[in-house]
Amino acid sequence: MRVTDLPTPSLLLDASALDRNLERMAEALPGARLRPHVKAHKCTVLASRQAQYGHSNFCCATIREMEGMAAAGLGEDLLLANEVMDARRLGALNARVTVAVDSLETVAAAVQGGVEECLIDVNVGLPRCGCAPDEAGRLADRARSAGLSVRGVMGYEGHVVGLPESGQRREGCEASMALLKAAHADVGGEVISAGGTGTFDCNQFATEIQAGSYALMDTAYGKIGLPFEQAFCVLSTVISVADRYVVADCGLKSLGMDHGNPDVLDAKVWFCSDEHLTFAPSRALKPGDRIRVLPAHVDPTMAYHDRLHLVDGDDVLEEWPIDLRGW
Amino acid sequence: MRVTDLPTPSLLLDASALDRNLERMAEALPGARLRPHVKAHKCTVLASRQAQYGHSNFCCATIREMEGMAAAGLGEDLLLANEVMDARRLGALNARVTVAVDSLETVAAAVQGGVEECLIDVNVGLPRCGCAPDEAGRLADRARSAGLSVRGVMGYEGHVVGLPESGQRREGCEASMALLKAAHADVGGEVISAGGTGTFDCNQFATEIQAGSYALMDTAYGKIGLPFEQAFCVLSTVISVADRYVVADCGLKSLGMDHGNPDVLDAKVWFCSDEHLTFAPSRALKPGDRIRVLPAHVDPTMAYHDRLHLVDGDDVLEEWPIDLRGW
Repeated sequence: MRVTDLPTPSLLLDASALDRNLERMAEALPGARLRPHVKAHKCTVLASRQAQYGHSNFCCATIREMEGMAAAGLGEDLLLANEVMDARRLGALNARVTVAVDSLETVAAAVQGGVEECLIDVNVGLPRCGCAPDEAGRLADRARSAGLSVRGVMGYEGHVVGLPESGQRREGCEASMALLKAAHADVGGEVISAGGTGTFDCNQFATEIQAGSYALMDTAYGKIGLPFEQAFCVLSTVISVADRYVVADCGLKSLGMDHGNPDVLDAKVWFCSDEHLTFAPSRALKPGDRIRVLPAHVDPTMAYHDRLHLVDGDDVLEEWPIDLRGW
Repeated sequence: MRVTDLPTPSLLLDASALDRNLERMAEALPGARLRPHVKAHKCTVLASRQAQYGHSNFCCATIREMEGMAAAGLGEDLLLANEVMDARRLGALNARVTVAVDSLETVAAAVQGGVEECLIDVNVGLPRCGCAPDEAGRLADRARSAGLSVRGVMGYEGHVVGLPESGQRREGCEASMALLKAAHADVGGEVISAGGTGTFDCNQFATEIQAGSYALMDTAYGKIGLPFEQAFCVLSTVISVADRYVVADCGLKSLGMDHGNPDVLDAKVWFCSDEHLTFAPSRALKPGDRIRVLPAHVDPTMAYHDRLHLVDGDDVLEEWPIDLRGW
């Protein structure tokens, strides 16, 4: 099949760029040094590809992602890097399951749900989940008393991963990891899980890095000088042409918009509607022409689509279901 | 089933508020005066409910929506209010199908796809699809020569529907409809299709109004003084509590974000992550508490979810599949 035969909007994934991204990361963070985060792509076939590059421990953001990974035979070591108040579906999985906890309530939920292992989630500066660093040791004691095996700590420096300069990222990461180090001293355990694509090369303290975006990339991460390529795009068809602008058939329902408008090569994007992208191209386009639209944020873009097309130039090699959507 | 038994995030739809919205609109625009736009909810059960209120002609934004409506037996008069360059799936439908055209290319695509009827889509001020008003007559002639039946014109005043003051909306709508009127004089036909939820009461020129958001509403439309209620929300669970903020389990993948952050009653929303909402509530919350999150934009929110729960207070009455997603 050719790319021209696909309906639009469709997600395209450049096979060579994907392989280069996976290879670069596997060189930098081999094996268990990387715990790929599947929330970025929600695709078990792509996770299998990451496993082929040597990473067999994975990270998820939702229970549905954990279930799908276990069902796909990728359950050797699955971390739900998130808090849940109902862990019963996790406890029922045929997989090694670890869940993040940051409170007595999430510890109790893990125990009640039949989960056996946890990480103590520590707030290292991002105002989201995670207990205060100086509470981590006490929470670990309580978790152990409740019957959980505490494998170590987790602390996501999410306020740092997107900073524009690598020096800023390094400095912010060091400050966050100092907090995590103190917490780990109180908690113990062999796992120190942290990081993301933006700090994959400067987070030297964590035993494993939770990176996901590196495989596909997006225009936001593309601006901060990382050695990963934009490997995916939304294929779209020009459906209307006016004097000063052109309209294509992708929009708010095929693009994650929280980081702003997507990019179109050699064009200025005006705005998106539900199913439209209005933009001013620098070359003449006509109805029926195909364009490639680069999303600003990969994760919420993937969550809108049910399949991904692996391509080599204009050849469609494979169709991969995006099978980890929903909750 | 009770709302407390639902996993989160889940979409809730208040049965009474929905009925009040549908009733108010059916009073203002009875029968064929309203052509409900299903892109806002992507749910054929909800469309059936709109049909029970007297509206049997529907409006879609994608081919998939057209297919789903036809398969659900709601194909009495389906308008694809959008341009397509491959109309073969439309031509194959067991339904009355009308498609918008704004160029010779989209006319040719309709003919080649086996579609028999069209509306001439006219640009009335929104820089998106639509031919120039003074080209509409000529395009209608060409469409008729090509074998299409031209039912009339369409012109969406999308740049006006969200203006904050009703006087501004009325004035903008009149200017747009003056353009559409001139085009209609050249095109002919019995259909003049235009409007949206924001101009449902001031667009007196169109023979039918394409409103969708009125059924469910969102916080953006909620700010401009329309007589429709916020009928839906995303149910979410508090999973983490810190001194100054609280975190719940809904985020960028369960909320349309192009109109900004959602609202939470009696709380200040800080930010959303993929699966998290960080907010500062004015009352104490603890892990496990449920909150109701009001999305800023209904359409791209619905497109993230695969089901909708009709509720009466804390009782879940029905589960409706959101079955028109994808393309």
